[in-house]
Amino acid sequence: MRSFTVGGVPAVLWSPGATDRPLIFIGHGGGEHKTAPEILRYAERFTAAGFAVVSADVPNHGDRPYDPGLDRKAGAMRARVDAGENLAVAIAAFQDEVSRQTVGEWRAVLDHLGADRAGYWGVSLGCGLGVPFVAAEPRVRAAVLGLGGGSANAATAARISVPVRFVIAWDDERIPRDNSLTLFDALGTPEKSLHAHPGGHSGPLPDHELDAQVAFFGRHLSPHPQG
Amino acid sequence: MRSFTVGGVPAVLWSPGATDRPLIFIGHGGGEHKTAPEILRYAERFTAAGFAVVSADVPNHGDRPYDPGLDRKAGAMRARVDAGENLAVAIAAFQDEVSRQTVGEWRAVLDHLGADRAGYWGVSLGCGLGVPFVAAEPRVRAAVLGLGGGSANAATAARISVPVRFVIAWDDERIPRDNSLTLFDALGTPEKSLHAHPGGHSGPLPDHELDAQVAFFGRHLSPHPQG
Repeated sequence: MRSFTVGGVPAVLWSPGATDRPLIFIGHGGGEHKTAPEILRYAERFTAAGFAVVSADVPNHGDRPYDPGLDRKAGAMRARVDAGENLAVAIAAFQDEVSRQTVGEWRAVLDHLGADRAGYWGVSLGCGLGVPFVAAEPRVRAAVLGLGGGSANAATAARISVPVRFVIAWDDERIPRDNSLTLFDALGTPEKSLHAHPGGHSGPLPDHELDAQVAFFGRHLSPHPQG
Repeated sequence: MRSFTVGGVPAVLWSPGATDRPLIFIGHGGGEHKTAPEILRYAERFTAAGFAVVSADVPNHGDRPYDPGLDRKAGAMRARVDAGENLAVAIAAFQDEVSRQTVGEWRAVLDHLGADRAGYWGVSLGCGLGVPFVAAEPRVRAAVLGLGGGSANAATAARISVPVRFVIAWDDERIPRDNSLTLFDALGTPEKSLHAHPGGHSGPLPDHELDAQVAFFGRHLSPHPQG
């Protein structure tokens, strides 16, 4: 694991050795950080399969300096929810705002690593920030997204044209099921698949789901596509 | 491919050679038969992965003699739909009725082959008849189901306790999406996963979905479970 910083953004790179490994960018969840236990699990699984993996701290997470402006926006979002606005809608709107910053930061990470193609992996906050990133960044050739709902970002999701694997926790207590299905539905790409598993928002993904994701990234990130 | 008949039911067995291969029973779709092109595709894929595969003609399909009584029930079902009953509900009720016959027939096929465990694979009609079979037959240890809705069979689905992979065609023109999700929801097993792909009711399943099903059956039918 190699730590580095790009434009003030702390990041880590896991690489199985060779420099030409296909790269997967992992966006972490809300309240988490670039080396949270779940991220380490995914990084370990993906590097064991021959991928390089990179993750970066999101603003006001991990080793980032405190940004009071962002915190005020989060406070305003919570106030809207307290005033009766739908939680999932308010969260999606806030994440969309944060993504205006993170899309550029994550692009800079790909630039720094000299990556000409990458996969993206992100659920929950990593989905809210990932949808705009995958839609905007042509180097991203395939994405695992999920545990996130569609409202503010549905129009952005419609611009995604690369293969997407979308994961739903069937008993998600934070994202209403219909809201999850709406985001999957909104994805513009013709090559998308929905995988739902029983469990709540923070439950671990089954091992066989990770196996399937390894196969998914293998199909779409290999220098010699297997079709 | 070996053809055989059990209690008047024509069936075929594909086997990669050794007699101790884990067995997958495939239930064909409506209007199809035990060696329809799609069934051959699945049989080829599963036998290449080391499974034995068996399929049998459903009443009034394939090489079965014509059963006017069953045809009258199908006609009555169509009349109910013409009179305004919901199509998916009427179909599910009819399939539930047919399953009272096929559950016993399929059990006899397992008996005939001396199988002490098997997987079940069936979508569309194969799901409508498969839900009662999987619920009733303890030798079935894992099932792929889908392209079918939940109404008449929801209570039966609740009795299924083995791992299920449930497939949905996201743009299914025959089974309303909510109806499909209702059946997945009704499955009583804690180990279930939903895989949805764009496309209509009769579209082929993606190759990567078949790969994932091979892995699914491999995990659950192996004599030495891999967890």
